[in-house]
Amino acid sequence: MSCQRWVRLSTEKPTSTVYVLDTELSLDVAGAAPEGATTFDVWGTSGVNLYVVHNGEILKVPSCVPRWPLDRSIEVIVMMDTPSFEVDEDKVRVSYFKDHGKTPIAKALLHLTCVEISLDADTNRTGSVSRRAKNKKDWTWGPQGKGAVLLVNCDRDSPEDRDVDNKDLELHTFADLRDMSLMILTMRGPDDVFEDHQVNLHISLSDQDKVGVFHALGKKKLRQYKHVLGSGKLSYSVERCPGQEENTFYVEGLAFPDRDFSGLVSFHATLLEASTKELPEVPIFNDTVVFRVAPWIMTPNTLQPIIVYVCSVQGNANFVADVNRLALKAGCKVVVCPEVENRQDRWIQDEMEIGYVQSPHKTFPVVFDSPRNGPLKDFPFKDVLGPDFGYVTREPPEGTVSSLDSFGNLEVSPPVTVKGKEYPLGRIIIGSNFPILEGRKMVKMVRDFLYAQKVQLPIELYSDWLLVGHVDEFMTFVPASDQKGFRLLLASPSACYKLLKEKEQEGHGDAMMFDGLKTSKQVSISKLLADKSLRSKNEYFQKCIDWNRDILKEELELTEEDIIDIPQLFSPSFNTSKAIAYFPDIVNMLVLGKYLGIPKPFGPIIEEQCCLEEEVRCLLEPLGLSCTFIDDFETYHLNYGEIHCGTNVRRKPFSFKWWNMTS
Amino acid sequence: MSCQRWVRLSTEKPTSTVYVLDTELSLDVAGAAPEGATTFDVWGTSGVNLYVVHNGEILKVPSCVPRWPLDRSIEVIVMMDTPSFEVDEDKVRVSYFKDHGKTPIAKALLHLTCVEISLDADTNRTGSVSRRAKNKKDWTWGPQGKGAVLLVNCDRDSPEDRDVDNKDLELHTFADLRDMSLMILTMRGPDDVFEDHQVNLHISLSDQDKVGVFHALGKKKLRQYKHVLGSGKLSYSVERCPGQEENTFYVEGLAFPDRDFSGLVSFHATLLEASTKELPEVPIFNDTVVFRVAPWIMTPNTLQPIIVYVCSVQGNANFVADVNRLALKAGCKVVVCPEVENRQDRWIQDEMEIGYVQSPHKTFPVVFDSPRNGPLKDFPFKDVLGPDFGYVTREPPEGTVSSLDSFGNLEVSPPVTVKGKEYPLGRIIIGSNFPILEGRKMVKMVRDFLYAQKVQLPIELYSDWLLVGHVDEFMTFVPASDQKGFRLLLASPSACYKLLKEKEQEGHGDAMMFDGLKTSKQVSISKLLADKSLRSKNEYFQKCIDWNRDILKEELELTEEDIIDIPQLFSPSFNTSKAIAYFPDIVNMLVLGKYLGIPKPFGPIIEEQCCLEEEVRCLLEPLGLSCTFIDDFETYHLNYGEIHCGTNVRRKPFSFKWWNMTS
Repeated sequence: MSCQRWVRLSTEKPTSTVYVLDTELSLDVAGAAPEGATTFDVWGTSGVNLYVVHNGEILKVPSCVPRWPLDRSIEVIVMMDTPSFEVDEDKVRVSYFKDHGKTPIAKALLHLTCVEISLDADTNRTGSVSRRAKNKKDWTWGPQGKGAVLLVNCDRDSPEDRDVDNKDLELHTFADLRDMSLMILTMRGPDDVFEDHQVNLHISLSDQDKVGVFHALGKKKLRQYKHVLGSGKLSYSVERCPGQEENTFYVEGLAFPDRDFSGLVSFHATLLEASTKELPEVPIFNDTVVFRVAPWIMTPNTLQPIIVYVCSVQGNANFVADVNRLALKAGCKVVVCPEVENRQDRWIQDEMEIGYVQSPHKTFPVVFDSPRNGPLKDFPFKDVLGPDFGYVTREPPEGTVSSLDSFGNLEVSPPVTVKGKEYPLGRIIIGSNFPILEGRKMVKMVRDFLYAQKVQLPIELYSDWLLVGHVDEFMTFVPASDQKGFRLLLASPSACYKLLKEKEQEGHGDAMMFDGLKTSKQVSISKLLADKSLRSKNEYFQKCIDWNRDILKEELELTEEDIIDIPQLFSPSFNTSKAIAYFPDIVNMLVLGKYLGIPKPFGPIIEEQCCLEEEVRCLLEPLGLSCTFIDDFETYHLNYGEIHCGTNVRRKPFSFKWWNMTS
Repeated sequence: MSCQRWVRLSTEKPTSTVYVLDTELSLDVAGAAPEGATTFDVWGTSGVNLYVVHNGEILKVPSCVPRWPLDRSIEVIVMMDTPSFEVDEDKVRVSYFKDHGKTPIAKALLHLTCVEISLDADTNRTGSVSRRAKNKKDWTWGPQGKGAVLLVNCDRDSPEDRDVDNKDLELHTFADLRDMSLMILTMRGPDDVFEDHQVNLHISLSDQDKVGVFHALGKKKLRQYKHVLGSGKLSYSVERCPGQEENTFYVEGLAFPDRDFSGLVSFHATLLEASTKELPEVPIFNDTVVFRVAPWIMTPNTLQPIIVYVCSVQGNANFVADVNRLALKAGCKVVVCPEVENRQDRWIQDEMEIGYVQSPHKTFPVVFDSPRNGPLKDFPFKDVLGPDFGYVTREPPEGTVSSLDSFGNLEVSPPVTVKGKEYPLGRIIIGSNFPILEGRKMVKMVRDFLYAQKVQLPIELYSDWLLVGHVDEFMTFVPASDQKGFRLLLASPSACYKLLKEKEQEGHGDAMMFDGLKTSKQVSISKLLADKSLRSKNEYFQKCIDWNRDILKEELELTEEDIIDIPQLFSPSFNTSKAIAYFPDIVNMLVLGKYLGIPKPFGPIIEEQCCLEEEVRCLLEPLGLSCTFIDDFETYHLNYGEIHCGTNVRRKPFSFKWWNMTS
């Protein structure tokens, strides 16, 4: 829409039009000129500011130039400062002259009524509506950026509701209004002018399944909030009661950004002028305000934990108790998912990922329910979704989901800067196949969703060399107070062989791996080192990890000092050559602030100390981290997972606001 | 992919690896260090460049520092300059020392073979392949931009073929190769190294329906060009014959940029290292080159015409002859679509739009076949498509197509600069409904296509107030040698009433409109001026045009001096209030350079001159334009169209290259 409107004049009869505050009227002075006219002058009443644009100069009227040549290069611009009290309150008169004649040969009279029409939202991102802002049509990133934010109203504020709050067209609780963004339509001016001028609020067809709008027709009763746009409704004619200058709307998001949705939605308020009865109304002014739907944001291990989730299943009572103790130290709550809910499915990391959404006026966590859909599948919707706890999922076609779609394969790095580009919310990390080697890959529907959130640009690693195929099997991040604020831990067969060889050289070749375990055959360091087949396979697994290591170094701009190699061996699984952890997978740990819950590796005991535990402490404790080794051998490790796979964490949102990112 | 690779060393046995030209190897010096080692030194053969990165300094080895502390902050980097002649030709040795000991306590030996692996294309946009270019993964716009270009191979070089050239997996004529882009894979190094190293060329799943690749296994025979990627083929293992350093590929586009396709496609060459037989190969290097599929570009009236298309139908022989004469003056060819092809459908403007595609090595026209599908529907595919004349269409679901999908409703402006942003290829203009007024709109599928081309950002106008609903009914552009190089002509009821009133005042109130026409009832100027109903409707139509005028002024940054109001009246159609031209629609003209073929308006004759023709000449001839008024009254005007609707023009491409746009 233009903020300048072309207005036709007539020398036959006075004409009349509406001026909208903060716009310009450009008068068609030449078009109305009678034959023979060569010059004109222009005059206006006190409520009118008149300007003549001539040779690039803007002159306020009256000026020292009394007459102007009738020339298409001259523009006459009308502006007004305040809404009129009465219709046709102000006037502009253009008088036409022939040559040097003193009496005009014709006059054109234009009556003006000034109105204020403005559609406003929190475009300055302060938490309240910005009035009469400029450039509301553009949405820009960064600390100087402008543009309002909308939340997907995907929580369930009324416990008795069956579905999330944006699935119906009614308001069930006032709490729900706080999840929506305010939008105010101002219509100021003499009441009479609104009898033949109508304001219409409308959205485009492509936005109708992205947003919902409620009109507050009163404030006290829930049923006074009327659903007026979205879910099939494209246009709403706003009734203006005499004297009513403002209409309040509440806006909710229906959909997250995705492959075919940038996240931007526009609301338009159009002022229509009635013509004769037979002919349609004509649009004469349009105000547009753009919102961006807030992305779903993941939280890395460096953020403070709030709640730890763990499943209670047959035989894991000790494990649950260990997790409870660790959470107590870290000062966070524990939610235990009972057997009746989890149906013996302990892999709560894989079933969901807890992130959050944020607007200047409201922030709440949102659980992303993975398409894995194990026996735990109802837990996120039934138990995690709730008041101010949102829910989102993606349901790919049946038969397309693989183990790589479990969210143990979905992690996020701490904040990084890469080649000068800042990622203040980190980067998402997912595992994939290596493209030329046929194999498993996270479904496109989920990858598309993750990329579309934009603020944590994903990195795809190669995790399909593992039987389970999750990135959390070979990497994790731990907080650190120095350097970049974190370290990347990578599982390392090389480091493990090096450690074991040193121990052998020190005379401990007979020390036994899996000492004290009934369920696993014990094996000495020397025998382990002599197993050439296991060694060559671990060289291959190390190369797979190193391929990822090179990608992570490049994509997160890490140096060797940011990486710690954690001793680990893998073995090929029974009937494929894909890797499984040979002993409990150390990097698959639970990170709660500085407290680490680490799978107890059951390494060779040397001088009454597990040499693997000792090495890990030696690597991590200097960073100020506290290592607690938890026995997950029978309940998790033997089922191809460890502590990280068997827990989930809700963390505090970033203090950095996503809209302050510079793209 | 990283251009730095992490390499493990061993003090137990010499290890061996491949170095790829233009990459770096980073040696895991600390990881291989024996227990007790505190310092190391590093030595290499003459083919190896060694660097130590220490405290942010890069030191070439040998340097003045003989020994280095064993510290993770120290990096050892290996680079090489030329491909090796033999496998393991060069060596690097790392010696480990304890404290101040003079004899190393251990040594790690790394054998190196240097190879060149490079996937190259015309990334510098010169018309030939750029070798060993950097940053091939990124595609950037502008005169300094980099990145190769691909054409959609949508012409039909062999007349006997049934479909366009990219629809089959074979090469039918050598001419077809010239529509494709060259891509060269270099694999230089000792032959033996390629026995356990394999290069794989691959694309992503989402690109497989966007590109096709032919491998030239020889040059002389068509069947030596083997289809290896695209249309279901994702990966191709490149066989290297001994001594063969280059493989030549030809790349064609299968699809234009669209809603879900940015136009960017990537080709990857991955070097794989064989492990043991049981284990898969490991990727150790990847080179990626990105192409952008060339957009479809429209040509505005300001570009030189090459061919005029017109239909021969019953009774229009004189019209065709008039168009021929005009084209002769303008120096362009005429193609007459015969009755057997057009089946009495004369609206050739509506059935297609001729644009072009361009790469640094090749440019050809492409006809966009509209979804209108009138009796003319086979003409674009059967007769326009041909050698070096491409074809594209979009087929929306049945029942969704309206009159607004005809390409009389699809125009393009001349080049403009708007708020500092340059549009050197102009901006596409389409007509639409006004969103709040229910109505017709161009189908989303076509709008999505137009937006996705990116280089001529569309403007949507309001054309649904017209019965036929095309933008060419109220606007056109003509060339001009001054100002911005063009003028926008807008149909203007106001200008028409003003002219007629002047004529009446001059005493010509009795002059007759439609003088000399048998098929239309004549009406005097005075009677026309006295028709209040017609007048009020034209005031409404003028407001509709003015709404568009304001948008065009803003979106093309035009001033009043860039716009010419052309006198025109509209009347409401019989059973709707939508507009049709009251007399032949003057702006619906054929623009061939400075020669304009204008619908003869049959206005009132005053002093043996049609006063409308006289006014139009008066407005346009000072710009150096030549006005030829062509009688289209019975054959076109009475069927709700005029000359522009009944013709089509192929024009010369812009001299400006689209990839030089700055986004």
